[in-house]
Amino acid sequence: MKKEKLWGGRFSASAEKALEEFSCSLHFDKRLAAYDLRGSWAHAKTLAKAEVLSADELRQIIDGLKRIRWEVKNDSFPWHAELEDVHTNIEARLCELIGDVGKKLHTGRSRNDQIATDLRLYLRGNVGVMQLAIHSLQDAIVRRAEEERASLMPGFTHLQPAQAITFGHHAMAWFEMLKRDFSRLDDSYKRINCLPLGSAALAGSGFALDRRYTAELLGFDELSDNSLDAVSDRDFAVELCADCALLMMHLSRMAEEIILWCSQPFSFVELPDSWCTGSSLMPQKKNPDALELVRGKSGRVYGDLVALLTIMKAQPLAYNRDNQEDKEPVFDAIDSSLACIRVMKGIISSMRVDRKRLAEAAQMGYTTATDLADYLVRKGMPFRDAHALSGRIVCHALERGCRLWELPLSDLRAFYPGADEGLLRALRPVQSLNSKAIHGSAAPQEVMKRIQAARLYLQETTCRGGPSVTSIMR
Amino acid sequence: MKKEKLWGGRFSASAEKALEEFSCSLHFDKRLAAYDLRGSWAHAKTLAKAEVLSADELRQIIDGLKRIRWEVKNDSFPWHAELEDVHTNIEARLCELIGDVGKKLHTGRSRNDQIATDLRLYLRGNVGVMQLAIHSLQDAIVRRAEEERASLMPGFTHLQPAQAITFGHHAMAWFEMLKRDFSRLDDSYKRINCLPLGSAALAGSGFALDRRYTAELLGFDELSDNSLDAVSDRDFAVELCADCALLMMHLSRMAEEIILWCSQPFSFVELPDSWCTGSSLMPQKKNPDALELVRGKSGRVYGDLVALLTIMKAQPLAYNRDNQEDKEPVFDAIDSSLACIRVMKGIISSMRVDRKRLAEAAQMGYTTATDLADYLVRKGMPFRDAHALSGRIVCHALERGCRLWELPLSDLRAFYPGADEGLLRALRPVQSLNSKAIHGSAAPQEVMKRIQAARLYLQETTCRGGPSVTSIMR
Amino acid sequence: MKKEKLWGGRFSASAEKALEEFSCSLHFDKRLAAYDLRGSWAHAKTLAKAEVLSADELRQIIDGLKRIRWEVKNDSFPWHAELEDVHTNIEARLCELIGDVGKKLHTGRSRNDQIATDLRLYLRGNVGVMQLAIHSLQDAIVRRAEEERASLMPGFTHLQPAQAITFGHHAMAWFEMLKRDFSRLDDSYKRINCLPLGSAALAGSGFALDRRYTAELLGFDELSDNSLDAVSDRDFAVELCADCALLMMHLSRMAEEIILWCSQPFSFVELPDSWCTGSSLMPQKKNPDALELVRGKSGRVYGDLVALLTIMKAQPLAYNRDNQEDKEPVFDAIDSSLACIRVMKGIISSMRVDRKRLAEAAQMGYTTATDLADYLVRKGMPFRDAHALSGRIVCHALERGCRLWELPLSDLRAFYPGADEGLLRALRPVQSLNSKAIHGSAAPQEVMKRIQAARLYLQETTCRGGPSVTSIMR
Amino acid sequence: MKKEKLWGGRFSASAEKALEEFSCSLHFDKRLAAYDLRGSWAHAKTLAKAEVLSADELRQIIDGLKRIRWEVKNDSFPWHAELEDVHTNIEARLCELIGDVGKKLHTGRSRNDQIATDLRLYLRGNVGVMQLAIHSLQDAIVRRAEEERASLMPGFTHLQPAQAITFGHHAMAWFEMLKRDFSRLDDSYKRINCLPLGSAALAGSGFALDRRYTAELLGFDELSDNSLDAVSDRDFAVELCADCALLMMHLSRMAEEIILWCSQPFSFVELPDSWCTGSSLMPQKKNPDALELVRGKSGRVYGDLVALLTIMKAQPLAYNRDNQEDKEPVFDAIDSSLACIRVMKGIISSMRVDRKRLAEAAQMGYTTATDLADYLVRKGMPFRDAHALSGRIVCHALERGCRLWELPLSDLRAFYPGADEGLLRALRPVQSLNSKAIHGSAAPQEVMKRIQAARLYLQETTCRGGPSVTSIMR
Repeated sequence: MKKEKLWGGRFSASAEKALEEFSCSLHFDKRLAAYDLRGSWAHAKTLAKAEVLSADELRQIIDGLKRIRWEVKNDSFPWHAELEDVHTNIEARLCELIGDVGKKLHTGRSRNDQIATDLRLYLRGNVGVMQLAIHSLQDAIVRRAEEERASLMPGFTHLQPAQAITFGHHAMAWFEMLKRDFSRLDDSYKRINCLPLGSAALAGSGFALDRRYTAELLGFDELSDNSLDAVSDRDFAVELCADCALLMMHLSRMAEEIILWCSQPFSFVELPDSWCTGSSLMPQKKNPDALELVRGKSGRVYGDLVALLTIMKAQPLAYNRDNQEDKEPVFDAIDSSLACIRVMKGIISSMRVDRKRLAEAAQMGYTTATDLADYLVRKGMPFRDAHALSGRIVCHALERGCRLWELPLSDLRAFYPGADEGLLRALRPVQSLNSKAIHGSAAPQEVMKRIQAARLYLQETTCRGGPSVTSIMR
Repeated sequence: MKKEKLWGGRFSASAEKALEEFSCSLHFDKRLAAYDLRGSWAHAKTLAKAEVLSADELRQIIDGLKRIRWEVKNDSFPWHAELEDVHTNIEARLCELIGDVGKKLHTGRSRNDQIATDLRLYLRGNVGVMQLAIHSLQDAIVRRAEEERASLMPGFTHLQPAQAITFGHHAMAWFEMLKRDFSRLDDSYKRINCLPLGSAALAGSGFALDRRYTAELLGFDELSDNSLDAVSDRDFAVELCADCALLMMHLSRMAEEIILWCSQPFSFVELPDSWCTGSSLMPQKKNPDALELVRGKSGRVYGDLVALLTIMKAQPLAYNRDNQEDKEPVFDAIDSSLACIRVMKGIISSMRVDRKRLAEAAQMGYTTATDLADYLVRKGMPFRDAHALSGRIVCHALERGCRLWELPLSDLRAFYPGADEGLLRALRPVQSLNSKAIHGSAAPQEVMKRIQAARLYLQETTCRGGPSVTSIMR
Repeated sequence: MKKEKLWGGRFSASAEKALEEFSCSLHFDKRLAAYDLRGSWAHAKTLAKAEVLSADELRQIIDGLKRIRWEVKNDSFPWHAELEDVHTNIEARLCELIGDVGKKLHTGRSRNDQIATDLRLYLRGNVGVMQLAIHSLQDAIVRRAEEERASLMPGFTHLQPAQAITFGHHAMAWFEMLKRDFSRLDDSYKRINCLPLGSAALAGSGFALDRRYTAELLGFDELSDNSLDAVSDRDFAVELCADCALLMMHLSRMAEEIILWCSQPFSFVELPDSWCTGSSLMPQKKNPDALELVRGKSGRVYGDLVALLTIMKAQPLAYNRDNQEDKEPVFDAIDSSLACIRVMKGIISSMRVDRKRLAEAAQMGYTTATDLADYLVRKGMPFRDAHALSGRIVCHALERGCRLWELPLSDLRAFYPGADEGLLRALRPVQSLNSKAIHGSAAPQEVMKRIQAARLYLQETTCRGGPSVTSIMR
Repeated sequence: MKKEKLWGGRFSASAEKALEEFSCSLHFDKRLAAYDLRGSWAHAKTLAKAEVLSADELRQIIDGLKRIRWEVKNDSFPWHAELEDVHTNIEARLCELIGDVGKKLHTGRSRNDQIATDLRLYLRGNVGVMQLAIHSLQDAIVRRAEEERASLMPGFTHLQPAQAITFGHHAMAWFEMLKRDFSRLDDSYKRINCLPLGSAALAGSGFALDRRYTAELLGFDELSDNSLDAVSDRDFAVELCADCALLMMHLSRMAEEIILWCSQPFSFVELPDSWCTGSSLMPQKKNPDALELVRGKSGRVYGDLVALLTIMKAQPLAYNRDNQEDKEPVFDAIDSSLACIRVMKGIISSMRVDRKRLAEAAQMGYTTATDLADYLVRKGMPFRDAHALSGRIVCHALERGCRLWELPLSDLRAFYPGADEGLLRALRPVQSLNSKAIHGSAAPQEVMKRIQAARLYLQETTCRGGPSVTSIMR
């Protein structure tokens, strides 16, 4: 079979080989094949409903599409790079399989609305996959948080110990970050799940296609309202990339923290051998490579977002070929995000928390200085004065080289005559922790409430789906 | 009055002048003053409810805050750069005005939860302002679209004339873009409008503050669920920047199109003198400077987004001073977006559309070649064959130097014996346009439906608000 | 052979499959094989010089490396993904081929200095390739410029016709952009071509390796001066990415211009069929897809730069695994740039310039208004007054609907009594052009000088090379 | 005085207030005033040389410019925002001061070549300032390196102790980074220091201006060779931004390291109070805020680079107003970089290194495992075998809980019969360090050589200058 470009009609000279290679997108849009087939199936049924295809023609086309789906799945599909893209490959193959009837499939559509439909189907499915992955990471975090709900550790600001918290509380901070990522994906889904098919090249199809019917067949919640916009719009891809960038930012923060924590000076956690690598020169090394890759991959996904935004900048409507460059960044952003979520889940599930070491660290750094100030406030001193006085007492303890609760009461009374045993108790990290009874605080009883709420959330929140792309095309 | 740093207690050497200048944020966080005051008002009321402040102390503090609000509004507030930031300036002034009672205000909070609250209040208000501005631009677009609903023009792909559309249809594509921008802001609002106050430095306040009460006073819909996350999280700023970047991308596309359209070779529209500038050397120039600035400012906002994402990358929890760098980018992104929306509204409202010139352009470029193919399909020819034949007929017309509908019927019959007068009619752009009756298409009757739907949308969609920041603090 | 990780010694549990997949870099670092082999060859010779290897051992190792080079070249090398990266694959294969002697090769080096060396060799070679490609595009531009040195066209500012120039002058502006790209690559080369080998893991090799000898063997001009920096530094990759980003920015500008010029309203140039594609729905379309891809690919390369900068942000020294993420962006930036340069060369060489159409456009838009002002200045009027008067005369011509030089002398004299025939001549675009005799101006005689200088530059400027990577390893 | 736009001639309606505000650049281009004046001085002299101005007119203009320079310097210049930009303000003021002669100044130039000249003058000067600042930071580093040339510390890879180095060696790694930054600025200078004046609007001036004379007066090394390119080119600004982004990346790495080192678990260094800030709530905190701001500001400068690249993407030649957006990013990149360099210098000069703590840390983590392997290699064992055996010995030491050199010789002999006292010596960090005699290594004697070379480099390398902008305009 001689492979002809779909648009070859008017051209006298054949396209230069160089252009062919330069503009070929098959190596990356091939992964849209299942989505392209499903979109074509729905388009064919809509053409039949509009009486552009007979029942028999429809049957032949659907049979052909199914056959192709089988070939793609079994890696026996004869891809031809010179056929440029996934759409042309599939249509050409259809004609090969079922003859001239195949030539009727492209009636009333264009590659412009076709690719927009394929990409939306693909991204829609991946929103669901990402949400599942996030849930699964959140689940691992909640388990860890419950195990370590009472494990005292220092909370840091400026990487300096600030106040005592628990490991469980810290883990639940990660949970919250991911909750927002999930929620952003949910919102993006609404704007992704909108059917462009029927917009044709840009002005709308000349055939009386029932777009609501197509939308139903494909599980789209909405129809695009403007054909010109429908073929030009790539917001949904940019937005998903932005969601991924924020997610990766979160993972980079988590990775950074665990890298710090498994450094020798910190030694808060130990990674299992199975999630580390060693050095080719230094046999004693146990390196958190996976976490470093997660951290590094944030750069990659930021880059994907910048690429997409740049591509779309100042493009006049409607479709321009610049948009072919939209796929690799968004595919990469999703792939990278998914891989990183899985790695983080593996590591968070299996790392060993050194409770003793954490508790020791929580005793350092005068993490209850705030409690000292609060105590003085409760005794009636204005906060600013209490703050200043606490500072002076901390300096005194520093000079003595002891912890706050190790100060003799007499010393404390030299600063504040009303100091009593209750103060010494208040200066112990555990006491400090328990005293913070407020919603969202680090107090173990409060953290436990949040963990229970988190479990409920995980049960009740549904991941986006849409009909599976592999479901039977009837 | 000697100006002392809030945190000066422990330090023996005074901060170096260089550090003071380097770390001062007053020149940009000053604009949060009204929000800081409102947050302090709510915090004071909550302290009183928790009986940390007496009714009388509360009264004094509120009076002081009101006085400061008045001073800020009337530009008589004595700002001191050496007091570093807006929070310290206000607290110091409060103490100046009402004496020692002022020192009680900071009880149970930290600048960490305070700045997060201020910023959320500020951004929340600006979401509303941006939504109003978008609505107003959409309104201008809908008016233009209605005026030009029947103004024939070429729709472009690859900047080549592709099919006939109307100017109204094109304008409504812009409307759709902005609808998504509005909707994204709406979603971001949910994640912005969450109260961090009560999280204190990072572990939660040690006082039994009723956070729901604070939230109610400030109009927050939700409470942050984890104190560590609450002071570390800047997602809401990044997300709003991403929304602005997408919006600016849209405006850059609209600007690019109008710049093209008012270039001499296109001459589709003329800008009013009042929205143009001239050249200092070439007196005949009438330059679309404002549109070029809009296009250029997309770069600025992309840069703001990259700045924020980079700042947050791999930051360990909780608050680090890196986060001080969050404000300028998000302020700039909002300011730039708002200014550009307003400029676009001005230009779209006042530019002159040259209908004659547009209609002529729509006759060029064989924009009804698709209709030719569709005609043949309706006569029973498979689309691919029809497409190929249409291509040959277009070549013939090109050679003859005539439009498709100017071809003699005999010529057409040489290609396709069944050609009739109906075909010649179908090849006229107006006929082509009217034949596209599908939802979202360029057909005037369909565009009119969308315009009506748009008007309804503008009436029914509410912009986000939250209680006004200037409302009375009781 | 059981495939063992190079660093497996200490580890009790085998690496999880997931980590293996996640951290494998073979699919992209494979392309460094020839460079890795060459680096190993030089390292082996240096080890022999330091008497760590005997002459016989050296011989065996070099023979083994040559054999592997042959296998890689002939695609018969047995790559194993589970061996993680290109280095391990090659070393393992070497041991397979030559036995235990192969285990001596890694003496005194680490993968940290090895990969830095490989990457520098690779990028060094690609600087040369890019320079050659740039020269070849510049050559095509100079040819076009000479052909069109006298082809009048409008020069635009704000996409409005401003002054008459020639197509040759415009093309030579592109030449200048590329000259800077070439020069930047030249400068980057200096910082790339520096040998890190000998730095080992980070502290320097414990063996007395003669690094100058290694540098000579590999054609490096300099030695790294600090072993810690040498394994941490990726400046050279970031810098090369920045060079590519600027280059792509230039190509995006050129692409944008030609896309405009081949739009129907402009019609300044026609692209050959061989560099265009058509539409699947609209057979008459002839789309500048290749140019749009070039324009779009600027986004991709910008993204690569952002990725790299983000990856390196705030990384503590020395090597962290984040750096594995450095390769894909810089490879992609180079590949994309090279492909786009080639496409631009093809298009610029073969596009047809419509001189008639250009000349007509140059007559439009009052492009000689400046010359009118200059004339008045020469007659003694201050420039600002001359500028204002010229503006009024242009308005008059606009109202009459004629060009400046078509105004009756009497009309001109009503504005300026001293107007004479010389003025009318001065107002013709060709005259205007010829009058600009200044260095770098659009006057054909001046453009011709620049073309001659450009030819000389192309002859005399040498592309960077370094010894070919495929040269014989003795 | 009624303020008129320079280009007001043709316009009937006055510019809308909104446009005026939107397009005004005075608030940021004001800082170019001294450069604009100097450029105007050189232009006036060139006009006089071309006999466009008489000697007397030249004298009046120069006197006026000097007067304005004095006003600007003394903050008494009457800036008018409605005059849009710095150029118009200065020209209007000149006419006010010296009357009609002032109107002759703009002869033969345009704001297009004027702003390009101003910006190049400004950036040229700032390259020199940045180089001086870098030198000064390098000087501080070299001093520190010399002081700490023998202070043992662990070198990290993957934030795990890898091998022993010295603090001096680590500091010298920073020196190397900055050497590359300096060198990049040097290269960029060449492309900045090129005169665009004479290019006028885009086609070149119509007056016979001696551009070489102008270049000499202004200290430019080269003339732009193409007038169209000269007014469109912003490479020099993008390139300088890229230099700043790389520099900030380096500073972010240095800041990150010092932040880690002054965290409690590390405690390698202590910052002086004067470079820290405290917490408003936690009086004991001593936070490395300045370093965190440096780290955060890398985001800002990355954003500036992205902004500039985006602005320039796909802009058709020649000048478009988008380019007005070029100034703020490049100004901000330079300002931020300079401020951060100064802060780093202050901190590096004054931080206290805890040698005892560093030395202890260097004993941890089996940092001489490599030396063990090297020892075995010297005894004839192939490296890979030696590496594997070393790994097993490290495991043994780990189990015994002792350091490598604390292992009984008998234990070592169980692994390797040939082990001797020399091995135990080789396993001590100091010994390990001294054994690395190779160029660029961590050995103190080698570091000392590099320090001497660095001092020589600082003496011999010249910072870029160009004639001072404040030098007398004769």
